[in-house]
Amino acid sequence: MGADRISKKYGMSPGSLVYVGDKPTDTVTVSVIDYSEGHLEERDDIRIEDCEPFLESNSMTWINISGVHNTEVIERIGKLSGLHFLLLEDVLNTEQRPKMDDYDDHLFVVMRMINMESEKHLLDHEQISLVIGNRFVISFQERTGDVFDPIRDRLRKAKGRIRRSGADYLAYSLMDMIVDHYFMVLEDFGDRIETLQDEVIDNPEPEILKSIHRLKHQMIFMRKAVWPVREVINNLLRLESDLIGKDVQFYLKDIYDHTLQVVDTVETYRDVLSGILDIFLTNVSNRMNEIMKVLTVIATIFIPLTFLAGVYGMNFHYMPELNWRYSYPVFWICNVTIAGIMLLWFRKKKWL
Amino acid sequence: MGADRISKKYGMSPGSLVYVGDKPTDTVTVSVIDYSEGHLEERDDIRIEDCEPFLESNSMTWINISGVHNTEVIERIGKLSGLHFLLLEDVLNTEQRPKMDDYDDHLFVVMRMINMESEKHLLDHEQISLVIGNRFVISFQERTGDVFDPIRDRLRKAKGRIRRSGADYLAYSLMDMIVDHYFMVLEDFGDRIETLQDEVIDNPEPEILKSIHRLKHQMIFMRKAVWPVREVINNLLRLESDLIGKDVQFYLKDIYDHTLQVVDTVETYRDVLSGILDIFLTNVSNRMNEIMKVLTVIATIFIPLTFLAGVYGMNFHYMPELNWRYSYPVFWICNVTIAGIMLLWFRKKKWL
Amino acid sequence: MGADRISKKYGMSPGSLVYVGDKPTDTVTVSVIDYSEGHLEERDDIRIEDCEPFLESNSMTWINISGVHNTEVIERIGKLSGLHFLLLEDVLNTEQRPKMDDYDDHLFVVMRMINMESEKHLLDHEQISLVIGNRFVISFQERTGDVFDPIRDRLRKAKGRIRRSGADYLAYSLMDMIVDHYFMVLEDFGDRIETLQDEVIDNPEPEILKSIHRLKHQMIFMRKAVWPVREVINNLLRLESDLIGKDVQFYLKDIYDHTLQVVDTVETYRDVLSGILDIFLTNVSNRMNEIMKVLTVIATIFIPLTFLAGVYGMNFHYMPELNWRYSYPVFWICNVTIAGIMLLWFRKKKWL
Amino acid sequence: MGADRISKKYGMSPGSLVYVGDKPTDTVTVSVIDYSEGHLEERDDIRIEDCEPFLESNSMTWINISGVHNTEVIERIGKLSGLHFLLLEDVLNTEQRPKMDDYDDHLFVVMRMINMESEKHLLDHEQISLVIGNRFVISFQERTGDVFDPIRDRLRKAKGRIRRSGADYLAYSLMDMIVDHYFMVLEDFGDRIETLQDEVIDNPEPEILKSIHRLKHQMIFMRKAVWPVREVINNLLRLESDLIGKDVQFYLKDIYDHTLQVVDTVETYRDVLSGILDIFLTNVSNRMNEIMKVLTVIATIFIPLTFLAGVYGMNFHYMPELNWRYSYPVFWICNVTIAGIMLLWFRKKKWL
Amino acid sequence: MGADRISKKYGMSPGSLVYVGDKPTDTVTVSVIDYSEGHLEERDDIRIEDCEPFLESNSMTWINISGVHNTEVIERIGKLSGLHFLLLEDVLNTEQRPKMDDYDDHLFVVMRMINMESEKHLLDHEQISLVIGNRFVISFQERTGDVFDPIRDRLRKAKGRIRRSGADYLAYSLMDMIVDHYFMVLEDFGDRIETLQDEVIDNPEPEILKSIHRLKHQMIFMRKAVWPVREVINNLLRLESDLIGKDVQFYLKDIYDHTLQVVDTVETYRDVLSGILDIFLTNVSNRMNEIMKVLTVIATIFIPLTFLAGVYGMNFHYMPELNWRYSYPVFWICNVTIAGIMLLWFRKKKWL
Repeated sequence: MGADRISKKYGMSPGSLVYVGDKPTDTVTVSVIDYSEGHLEERDDIRIEDCEPFLESNSMTWINISGVHNTEVIERIGKLSGLHFLLLEDVLNTEQRPKMDDYDDHLFVVMRMINMESEKHLLDHEQISLVIGNRFVISFQERTGDVFDPIRDRLRKAKGRIRRSGADYLAYSLMDMIVDHYFMVLEDFGDRIETLQDEVIDNPEPEILKSIHRLKHQMIFMRKAVWPVREVINNLLRLESDLIGKDVQFYLKDIYDHTLQVVDTVETYRDVLSGILDIFLTNVSNRMNEIMKVLTVIATIFIPLTFLAGVYGMNFHYMPELNWRYSYPVFWICNVTIAGIMLLWFRKKKWL
Repeated sequence: MGADRISKKYGMSPGSLVYVGDKPTDTVTVSVIDYSEGHLEERDDIRIEDCEPFLESNSMTWINISGVHNTEVIERIGKLSGLHFLLLEDVLNTEQRPKMDDYDDHLFVVMRMINMESEKHLLDHEQISLVIGNRFVISFQERTGDVFDPIRDRLRKAKGRIRRSGADYLAYSLMDMIVDHYFMVLEDFGDRIETLQDEVIDNPEPEILKSIHRLKHQMIFMRKAVWPVREVINNLLRLESDLIGKDVQFYLKDIYDHTLQVVDTVETYRDVLSGILDIFLTNVSNRMNEIMKVLTVIATIFIPLTFLAGVYGMNFHYMPELNWRYSYPVFWICNVTIAGIMLLWFRKKKWL
Repeated sequence: MGADRISKKYGMSPGSLVYVGDKPTDTVTVSVIDYSEGHLEERDDIRIEDCEPFLESNSMTWINISGVHNTEVIERIGKLSGLHFLLLEDVLNTEQRPKMDDYDDHLFVVMRMINMESEKHLLDHEQISLVIGNRFVISFQERTGDVFDPIRDRLRKAKGRIRRSGADYLAYSLMDMIVDHYFMVLEDFGDRIETLQDEVIDNPEPEILKSIHRLKHQMIFMRKAVWPVREVINNLLRLESDLIGKDVQFYLKDIYDHTLQVVDTVETYRDVLSGILDIFLTNVSNRMNEIMKVLTVIATIFIPLTFLAGVYGMNFHYMPELNWRYSYPVFWICNVTIAGIMLLWFRKKKWL
Repeated sequence: MGADRISKKYGMSPGSLVYVGDKPTDTVTVSVIDYSEGHLEERDDIRIEDCEPFLESNSMTWINISGVHNTEVIERIGKLSGLHFLLLEDVLNTEQRPKMDDYDDHLFVVMRMINMESEKHLLDHEQISLVIGNRFVISFQERTGDVFDPIRDRLRKAKGRIRRSGADYLAYSLMDMIVDHYFMVLEDFGDRIETLQDEVIDNPEPEILKSIHRLKHQMIFMRKAVWPVREVINNLLRLESDLIGKDVQFYLKDIYDHTLQVVDTVETYRDVLSGILDIFLTNVSNRMNEIMKVLTVIATIFIPLTFLAGVYGMNFHYMPELNWRYSYPVFWICNVTIAGIMLLWFRKKKWL
Repeated sequence: MGADRISKKYGMSPGSLVYVGDKPTDTVTVSVIDYSEGHLEERDDIRIEDCEPFLESNSMTWINISGVHNTEVIERIGKLSGLHFLLLEDVLNTEQRPKMDDYDDHLFVVMRMINMESEKHLLDHEQISLVIGNRFVISFQERTGDVFDPIRDRLRKAKGRIRRSGADYLAYSLMDMIVDHYFMVLEDFGDRIETLQDEVIDNPEPEILKSIHRLKHQMIFMRKAVWPVREVINNLLRLESDLIGKDVQFYLKDIYDHTLQVVDTVETYRDVLSGILDIFLTNVSNRMNEIMKVLTVIATIFIPLTFLAGVYGMNFHYMPELNWRYSYPVFWICNVTIAGIMLLWFRKKKWL
């Protein structure tokens, strides 16, 4: 919930590197892809110092670090590439709001990767930090496992223009992949909302309320993660820096449009959910009405009849009706007549 | 719902053309209208390559492509007219937010055509992509059948200034037609809202609630489609490009005003719908009140009387009233009196 | 409702003049007031061509056209004064949003005159279009009868600075009169809201709900008509045109302030109405509570008593109480005690 | 309510001076304080023409006019100091929105003084108009009695820098006093809200609802009066005029901050009030629940028992139980058991 | 509540120093830390005049004043460091909105330190005023006890860059500490909200409503304190002053991001709380429904049966059923059948 972890580093000097997330069990792994139009070299699970020759080479270098809980590794990569310690601090503080910082010779972009755990529909989010240099991109992830495999594939197969382009295009590809993945999550939302829409009419159980609120809750977090991305891209577009080429700015505008679409869809979903909630609540009060109607119809028909039966159960010595020959059938005829009139009246009032 | 289809192309390279919509059954048809002030040539259902001479001629050319699910055709037209593959991608991604992109030698406009299926009142929307070049307009539609026939007529009959004007005026005419069509949909909304307004007072059935929510739902989608058009036109107006002449900018301002009017009306309708919903809910709770009143009146009148009858139904040996001569008529007089007092009291409280 | 009529002209070429309003029965009447500081000539109900000499003279000319359903007349006045056909189209399209267009040698202002029919409190609105030229003002109204008589009076009596001033001042006077009239309508709103405020406390009938919603509904339309006027005046103020003199800009700022005040008041009224609605709804649920209380008090007092009476109405052979000498008075004493305790308990709970 | 009075001047020429407020009974009084660092001359209740020598002198002059219903006096002071008649019109129109107009050689500021009548807690507001010239300030009030006595005191006692400073500082002091007085009103609001917060929990009577709505209502008017002051000060700060010295601008920023604080507090109070309203409504529905629970508990316990008693009150000839020796005690045992089970069940459901 | 105290100084001259807070019991204490890269001198509880040599020295000086209720001390420190009396007034007015004022040779920053009293979860806020000069920082606190101990530690231990940097870095450190502390409070909020989320489903007691409203209330105050900080930092960032070095601006942007995150989280929490409130209210109405169902089921089953028993309790002489041999068992069979059918019907309606 954003605030839970930051207290760990409360009171530290601004420059001290402290990891604020939960301690994950997997170790930190560093992998490098070094490529140019003609060659590609891939190394998994290497030591941080082994990255140095790649960084110094003329080819593009993508260093991916999975797991940011080892502050020592982060500090070493920081020294190696000359990163400001405020940047490193932001990498470690995994509850960052998406943002973009310009460190002159490199850019720093924080985004949030969102996953929908498919069975229980739990949202799972992870901070992705990107350092975009002139000839390198360093990406920091909280956990192993990401959505970047298609990019690795494209790099390996030299598909598309990615091998011919610079670090800015690689960074764009990574960001694009994250934003594209939002649509996967939205799809899951869309399916569940459609299911809810059917259920709320057929079978308005209290369970549905919980689903509605869980969806609303997840939407709030989704929106919180996506909305600032708009600003991030906007800042990148207005940036006067050589690090982002003009052609890549064109691609970034595409991400911008996608972000708008995501936010738009989230807003629409929220409106639709509010509608479902309204239908649910009206259904609840309709059922209440129905219950009351049944009670009222039964009670108002039988209460007068019971009174009548009570009257002729009295033990007064002088009650002439008691001795009449046809009192009993007349009693029944009266009862049926009273009940019939009542029923007609209820029907007229559309209670039946 | 915007997000459902995009996952199809998830993970593809940004340049790979994938159609994200449902596969429609009708084939892709290409039609061309080539015209200048003096001549007009019209060709239906031709191959994409046959468009080339028209594009190269000095006259205005309007190529209309119905059905964008055939990526190969889209790719060929892209090559023919030198379109950026991001543009082609946007054409194929039929869940685009309305937008305008400036590709220097041509403009790209995405809008959304909205139809109200007249019997079941289902909203049906379709993405219209326009490429506006110097001497040509290419329009992409998702399905056969559109709202552009009046423009075709005007072109054929050389009505108005359309034959004398350039590609910008044709593009304006198409966009104007789309926005004008929004008013048709609004009209349908207006009629249904008026019907609802009458019904909610005369006959507040739960059915009305569903109608209200369906209308609200459609309004949300309508707004989502129309609101960004404002921005599109605004961007076109502030564009520093030779592709849009000064006179056409004047016409565009007209569309801008119309869009504002559509959004205004949608907002007003939403407010009016909220009012109808309030009336409905108050009616529901009024009926509840009425039901409770009936129950309360009947029950509170008869419960004391029944108690009294019960008392004289008791079998105590020593109950003096039982043997009195006029106990029975006195009992009835008491009952009528009690009931009368209660009724007067209820009338005073305005429950009757 | 804004959208109802526009479909009439759907599909027409942008330049074709079609009247979209209801066909009013009265004929189109043209009247002219030509004036300078020294002279004033007034002509009612003349042919449109007779206006030409006035337009060509050096004096100020105010042409007022009541009824815009005769497209031919509009076309002729258009030709006579060289008006753009988009302007004429806007004049005929009587569901325009208030707006200002700058046609270099004349300005076009659309506003909405609002009337409150005094007995039934029905809002009645009418589009007023003003063309402001260098030495003339042309005003188009939908119907005969307007709020401009005080201005005509002032012109005739040479009161104020109006006879000495130019077309801009006349146009300002007309706009000021329209905005001033909004206050008359607000006054009616204010009176009705005050009445509602009293009624909702004294006598919360469902009728009040309808009044609240009708007022809310009218407020929505009022706001829709007034809000864009702000923008219109703002655009006039920032206009770099000789048509609006510096001194008149000062007066326009006054209208601007008035418009703000109208919008402010409408917003305040909406808030107040929401408050009244809240009070009404709470009153409804308070009455519900009261009804339930009565039912509960009566029922919970008599149900145990009735049970007791039932017990002693049983026919068991061996029931010792039946034969005791003082059973019956003891029974009554018990009943009164039970009822008394219950009543005390209800009083303690503040239900009585 | 802002709109009530303006109709009085409807249709007048813009330059005609008409007072739109209620005719107060007290006469118009003019008072003058003329001062410089060394001297101070004070005159109460003088004729307007007697102000002339003060205005022409080199010392600072503060003319205060209480009562603006005498248009003749206003006109004379207008002529004397060369004020624009639009300004005078604004002075007379006492339902003005706070605003600032720049008349080159003097500034015109309209603010609203708010008083909370301490016993009945009625809001009372009054328009204060200030004309700020080079060496004079003219203040117009609707009624005698104001909040400026501390300033008069400071002038007389030469306290603070007020005697050494110019007209701008005097005007600032007056505006500061008005804004400071808002805090007094807020204090009263705060006290009443705190009282409400206690009452709504202890004793949720319908009276509280009325208090909540009256407070909300007053808050709406408070906000309406204060919000535009922000803009007024902002315009004064950005003004390029010699009339406001640099040092006074610094002081004005202080008022600006105070205005923000007032608006902030009003907003907070509104949120708090909404919370109180929510608590009230939930309390109401909680009581409803409690009432229903009591009814249900009593009814569901006794209804089966009453049935049983009814059964053994039947007169069938062949009912074996009637003749058994221990039927009656067994009947009571059954009843107590049934009632006991029901009570346990209700307790389990937490209804008791 | 912001407005409660300001009335104390109502009517005072702008320059008169009056403390508006509650009179705290502890005395005013002044402490000084004077440091440069090489040396550090710390003095607690000294007289204000003893600060002078530190202020005049070339090293950095941090003067911290705890308790601002002694106006004389404030006045002396004001004279000593040449502070504007408007600044001193703001220091004493402890209900200030967070703000930044530029006094050319020093900056004035007002922030609000927020503490969550850990046991009773009471928000406690205190105004911190900072004067940032060229070689000194003066901090004013309302009470003894603050969140700055880590900074004092860092200064003493020469940890981080704080000893090497100027007054701007020290001021940044103090502001950063305050904002960091907001996260501690947010954490407490987060924990309580999570608890509420569990409780509202398991055990929806009216107590929860009070907790929800108290949290909402505290959130409103939190937001009110944090939101303007955004502006403060923004103003510092856009400041053209030598007092804030370029490197420190970089750090300030970090605080800005943190503030955004706090506001974001507060907004999210508010949304989540609204969701919890909705769940609570629906639970309440669900329980109501359940209560009504129980009543209706019991009543509608037994009311007809009781009627039947009543019928055969009547004393008519001629009732054939009474003498039949198997009337009594048939009566019971009828009853069980009727009850069974009702139960099935209720089950079908899902009321059981």
